[in-house]
Amino acid sequence: MLNVLTPDETLELIKKEFAHIAPQPETVGLGFAVGRVLYEDVAATEYVPGFDRSTVDGYAVKAADTFGCSDAIPAILQVAGKVLMGEDADIILSEGQCCAVPTGGAVPQGADSVVMVEYTEDYGDGTVGIGKAAAPGQNMIFKGDDVFPGKTILKKGRRLSSQDIGALAAIGKANVTVAKKPRIAVISTGDELVLPSETPKAGQVRDVNGALLSAMLTSFGAEPVTLGIIKDNEEELRKAVSAAVQSCDAVLLSGGSSVGEKDAAAKVIGSLGEMLLHGIAMKPGKPTIMGRVQGKPVIGLPGHPVAVYFVSRAVVLPLLGYFTGLDMPSHTIAAELSESVSANHGRAQYHCVRLQREGERLIAYPIRSKSGLITTLAGADGYFCIPRDCEGLPRGAAVQITLCARE
Amino acid sequence: MLNVLTPDETLELIKKEFAHIAPQPETVGLGFAVGRVLYEDVAATEYVPGFDRSTVDGYAVKAADTFGCSDAIPAILQVAGKVLMGEDADIILSEGQCCAVPTGGAVPQGADSVVMVEYTEDYGDGTVGIGKAAAPGQNMIFKGDDVFPGKTILKKGRRLSSQDIGALAAIGKANVTVAKKPRIAVISTGDELVLPSETPKAGQVRDVNGALLSAMLTSFGAEPVTLGIIKDNEEELRKAVSAAVQSCDAVLLSGGSSVGEKDAAAKVIGSLGEMLLHGIAMKPGKPTIMGRVQGKPVIGLPGHPVAVYFVSRAVVLPLLGYFTGLDMPSHTIAAELSESVSANHGRAQYHCVRLQREGERLIAYPIRSKSGLITTLAGADGYFCIPRDCEGLPRGAAVQITLCARE
Repeated sequence: MLNVLTPDETLELIKKEFAHIAPQPETVGLGFAVGRVLYEDVAATEYVPGFDRSTVDGYAVKAADTFGCSDAIPAILQVAGKVLMGEDADIILSEGQCCAVPTGGAVPQGADSVVMVEYTEDYGDGTVGIGKAAAPGQNMIFKGDDVFPGKTILKKGRRLSSQDIGALAAIGKANVTVAKKPRIAVISTGDELVLPSETPKAGQVRDVNGALLSAMLTSFGAEPVTLGIIKDNEEELRKAVSAAVQSCDAVLLSGGSSVGEKDAAAKVIGSLGEMLLHGIAMKPGKPTIMGRVQGKPVIGLPGHPVAVYFVSRAVVLPLLGYFTGLDMPSHTIAAELSESVSANHGRAQYHCVRLQREGERLIAYPIRSKSGLITTLAGADGYFCIPRDCEGLPRGAAVQITLCARE
Repeated sequence: MLNVLTPDETLELIKKEFAHIAPQPETVGLGFAVGRVLYEDVAATEYVPGFDRSTVDGYAVKAADTFGCSDAIPAILQVAGKVLMGEDADIILSEGQCCAVPTGGAVPQGADSVVMVEYTEDYGDGTVGIGKAAAPGQNMIFKGDDVFPGKTILKKGRRLSSQDIGALAAIGKANVTVAKKPRIAVISTGDELVLPSETPKAGQVRDVNGALLSAMLTSFGAEPVTLGIIKDNEEELRKAVSAAVQSCDAVLLSGGSSVGEKDAAAKVIGSLGEMLLHGIAMKPGKPTIMGRVQGKPVIGLPGHPVAVYFVSRAVVLPLLGYFTGLDMPSHTIAAELSESVSANHGRAQYHCVRLQREGERLIAYPIRSKSGLITTLAGADGYFCIPRDCEGLPRGAAVQITLCARE
């Protein structure tokens, strides 16, 4: 077979051919921003907090006025005023004075610390006894402690989490510029396919890959454009791919697992543009092809849903990263293999697992099944890969699991 | 303080008081089901595949007809027909016969295996030479190999992943019954609060918790109902909570970090229903209260966003589990502490971290900051908890990190 590449070589090819793809900006309200990828660095333009704040209910003081005081011999300070929540502290504290402040309230000028109300006694005559010495800066957040103008809060390429949304609210970014979701066409091919809602006749099967790919693309932060089932006919396929590249950023074909069908997809890509890849040395997933039509990636995925799943994780997800600018490592979790797993020399081999915690250990149970069974995937917690030059792994081997339950 | 409970005791209290909450069913199309929680077990009602299928391009044969053949001495079989993709195999194979089948095509009755086309030679006279003996069952998936009527494919309480969607498509579930998203009211309280889009005056700050909680609830699979900012006034708060319990399944109040405000929230909950919890022994997050109004949980969260974040993870997320029936363990990843971290005896203590892979090791760098700084959270990759009875952890200690970047 021409140009069968390893998964790593495939990623290099994608980088070489498609890394020039630039994310496109889109501005959304904070309520719609969680999970989106930040288009540009976000820096603060003001101070947060914008004023010195108390972190406790108590009295703002000059710390020096409290040095040496104790429960038994309190420092007696004159109450100069009371700061109200949400209002400016419009007094300036002089020596021997204090000022009541609530948690989160403004600390008046002249004060350098706050004593918790628990350590004070209001004598009712305009004075307060302070029973515990304050250190300068105590129980306060100073103006700009959190952020100051020009400080970068979040870097571009970050997938926004809930806390990031909170930080954006804090610095007054009620709208945020994120990468547009790439529109990815999903076309299923095959004379044997019917919709999931239809009852297959003898010889027919339901189209699984359309629903699988749409869900994966949604999870990956793309917008699936489901174009349905195309009969296995070169002319039909050419029309569908031509139309899809007009309206979408990339095209995923799935199906065509027989030699003739694979050839038809390759011919269509070749005649409309150019072929770049004729297969990937991975198992499952070998019969994957890739090309470019009008500058846009067109990937011909295998027919088996399990293969579609792994090729999408290995190849489509990194490709989408160029559209969104996503720049975050994905983390795996360590687990222990419940049984030995043999591998085919020469192809990176992917296995689904169920995870179970047994005391301190996390055990990975490989899901064994014939190729092409969708129920291999259903209920899987994650997967691991045996590299191409490894002959297998013994029982108890440490494996790094990529979680798939919450993509 | 009355009823200050540990985080575990708080979860026990929630279980005791709210475990009777039952998920409500809702039927959605597969295109909208990823990430939703399955309401009931899903079993197949038919066979998948519905017929014996070939997994290769080749010839369906009776294996016995090929025993002993080789490249040099091929078995010569009569071609009885050709199966077309998507159509029934309407012939019955007799001894000495074979039938061309494509990958995924139906294997005719009488055949028990398929020989790959690579090992055959078409003599052009209606016969084919088979150059490699077939074992019975070879290169086939049998009817019902994947699923059969009554087989449970997915269990209720599972958060549907992309592969699960594929499995549902395979068994013809174009619609699926999931738990309704609980509607959770979000009310921010405080005289000092302004909207994120507004410019705070002296003494004012932007409402961070409203945006933070809405994003967290969205990530948790709930529907946030943002009711805005309420001034710190008992009567206003009573009206807002009364209205919220009418239209929502639970109410989250945030803010009210001063003693007076906290008291107001507790009074409102007490007067409309009953108080259940007056504080949690966690840091940050202690000033958390919880009660019940008209059978619905009402939680008064702290004012500091960082505390709101951790209390929401520790308490609100498990509570939401009763509304959705979610029944999946969450996985943590092991990392190594970059430096020692001391802990306050007596309170479970939560720390945000940045993660960095250094060779084989994953290092967790604690983000140190004063309490209440939202930028402690922004950019964090995850967090860990030091239990209440632990005095701290040394540099290099193994910690279990809960990832927060992709909730």
